[in-house]
Amino acid sequence: MRLRNVKNKETIMANSEYLVINPTLYKGKWHTLFNNDNPIYLEIGMGKGQFLINNALRYPDINFIGIEKYDSVIARAIEHIPLNLPNIKVVRVNAMEVDNIFLKEITILFLNFSDPWPKNRQENRRLTSKVFLDKYKDIFLNNQVIIQKTDNRQLFEYSLIEFSKSNYKIEEISLDLHHSEIADNIMTEFEEKFAKEGKPIYRVVVTKE
Amino acid sequence: MRLRNVKNKETIMANSEYLVINPTLYKGKWHTLFNNDNPIYLEIGMGKGQFLINNALRYPDINFIGIEKYDSVIARAIEHIPLNLPNIKVVRVNAMEVDNIFLKEITILFLNFSDPWPKNRQENRRLTSKVFLDKYKDIFLNNQVIIQKTDNRQLFEYSLIEFSKSNYKIEEISLDLHHSEIADNIMTEFEEKFAKEGKPIYRVVVTKE
Repeated sequence: MRLRNVKNKETIMANSEYLVINPTLYKGKWHTLFNNDNPIYLEIGMGKGQFLINNALRYPDINFIGIEKYDSVIARAIEHIPLNLPNIKVVRVNAMEVDNIFLKEITILFLNFSDPWPKNRQENRRLTSKVFLDKYKDIFLNNQVIIQKTDNRQLFEYSLIEFSKSNYKIEEISLDLHHSEIADNIMTEFEEKFAKEGKPIYRVVVTKE
Repeated sequence: MRLRNVKNKETIMANSEYLVINPTLYKGKWHTLFNNDNPIYLEIGMGKGQFLINNALRYPDINFIGIEKYDSVIARAIEHIPLNLPNIKVVRVNAMEVDNIFLKEITILFLNFSDPWPKNRQENRRLTSKVFLDKYKDIFLNNQVIIQKTDNRQLFEYSLIEFSKSNYKIEEISLDLHHSEIADNIMTEFEEKFAKEGKPIYRVVVTKE
């Protein structure tokens, strides 16, 4: 997501206990930063952080890391994280770098309302393209588990085909999340907006050994 | 589908050039009935036959077989088939019998607006349950190709998971067929009705080697 410029973003980022400045240093050992061996869940494209923060508050025994590429967006997210929340970290980096930052340590990867990059020539930028699926392979501790939510039908159709091509299994799927019996859905900012407009929200859980 | 009783259904069926009375006799050799080696496409649950008949008219070099379990429904379908259409046959039989009727001869299997059997205890009656997927295995000439259309979200979600569990690949998918760029869609009776009501129609093409 993009946001209008946040004027004091450098100050916010420089003073944050949550922002990890040199994420490559922790590749394969993020648990040392959290000081425990709890599972680590990753969100790529965390936006303003509502999903990540609410998860971290609800699940204190899980560590949450959010990635976002825009300074202004991550500054806004940092402002929203309550003080002294021990199980959340954020990283300002392009998603392309994910395999340089993590190694055999992620339990679940969340892709929420990712940019659909609708043009054919932009395909490789979609977070569920083969380019990215290949990058995710080695970040997982055990089985790969990816949970995608989106309101974008074309992106979701594309993703289902890509998951299938790369031999992921569909474990759960909802083609209208807000009219499904799914407990414990934590909404993103986009999701609240789209759900209010009555647009169906698509969600899938895929796994791969 | 069910229909109110068609009074003269026995007469219609007895006099039809299209109804195959002893389908098991043709197991593995349906091409002899069509007198050619054209591909054979099968629809399980053909209803009143609009989809099958319009396909047969549009594609004279493909043979179409429709299965339907209710006398009244198949009688109504037979009445709608134009005279002397050489590439269509219908069979009045329960879908459970499909593996007793066909062997290594079907190119595409169509499942259109199948009964969703929504209750858990009815799962095995759904045409995309493992019980049925196992039955379809040996009816195909080469690769398995199944094309499903439905307006029923829960059935579609269920089917995607079952296809995935049984290692089918998703080749094409649309979560709103009538707002997608898919050429050459031939509609069923149900589809016309639901599309008019603005309900999304789901469609998937899956394959398995």
